[in-house]
Amino acid sequence: MAENGTLHDAFLDELRDVYDAEQQLTKALPDLADAATSPNLKAAFEEHLEQTRGHVQRLEMVFASLDEKASGQHCDGIAGIIKEGGNVADEDYDESTMDACLIAAGQRAEHYEIAAYGSLIAWARGMGHTDAVDLLQQTLDEEKAADEKLTSLAEGGINQDAAETAHARP
Amino acid sequence: MAENGTLHDAFLDELRDVYDAEQQLTKALPDLADAATSPNLKAAFEEHLEQTRGHVQRLEMVFASLDEKASGQHCDGIAGIIKEGGNVADEDYDESTMDACLIAAGQRAEHYEIAAYGSLIAWARGMGHTDAVDLLQQTLDEEKAADEKLTSLAEGGINQDAAETAHARP
Repeated sequence: MAENGTLHDAFLDELRDVYDAEQQLTKALPDLADAATSPNLKAAFEEHLEQTRGHVQRLEMVFASLDEKASGQHCDGIAGIIKEGGNVADEDYDESTMDACLIAAGQRAEHYEIAAYGSLIAWARGMGHTDAVDLLQQTLDEEKAADEKLTSLAEGGINQDAAETAHARP
Repeated sequence: MAENGTLHDAFLDELRDVYDAEQQLTKALPDLADAATSPNLKAAFEEHLEQTRGHVQRLEMVFASLDEKASGQHCDGIAGIIKEGGNVADEDYDESTMDACLIAAGQRAEHYEIAAYGSLIAWARGMGHTDAVDLLQQTLDEEKAADEKLTSLAEGGINQDAAETAHARP
């Protein structure tokens, strides 16, 4: 009888999933940056693209710390979120409304990753993979900071500008 | 020349998206409950199913507060997350590993919704839709509580049990 998979197997599966998710995001973030009007929002997406490339490399270090070859498996969750973001970018919205929507799309991606890294860190800690915990925690901290940055841009004027377009044409 | 969409249009689009997402979750949560072994985890998914039915009704009240008919549009983001959860449930994992994976899948769904409701509330507040803000905030609070409940179940023994299976068969 075949043995059932353990948490180690599930951990590797989830690592492959998020490795693919980060790679998908390196292709999607330039589109969000292109669609943004606010220079600060554009810069935030571009900065997060650089961070995301770093997350891919950091995951390769996690695989190496486990003596595993880095490999991805298609991540349906982030694929759906990216598809939604692409649909938003194709809409004919006012500029500030588009920026507000791009922030909302970006925050869905950040929250997906916050959940994914949160689980990975808890599992790695339980199995005593201390190097993996440290590496994954660095990325989780950057994902949370990116989410907070998007919130601060929304609250710092973009949502208010967008709401005024709605009031101008109720 | 056609007018571009305002934040009000984007808000209705996002409401339709999350209305569909909640309905998709009412169909998916029973599968997560069925796949769970821990009685507490099973109960948590069943309780959240009841809450999710309430979220659907609450969104109907939000639409009504805007004099809009409640309607959904396919939510690709949650569809991808649910597909992932279904793939997990089909794996041959040890029971405690499966429970840990179901928690991880559930938390991705919660975080998707936390991001979605967070944006909706910020936009509703900006446009002065105070009834919508109150209704959406009640749901956001329940989503956050559901996420914390899953974390407490993971930390309350499920992750540790799962990690021990990994150590037993390194």
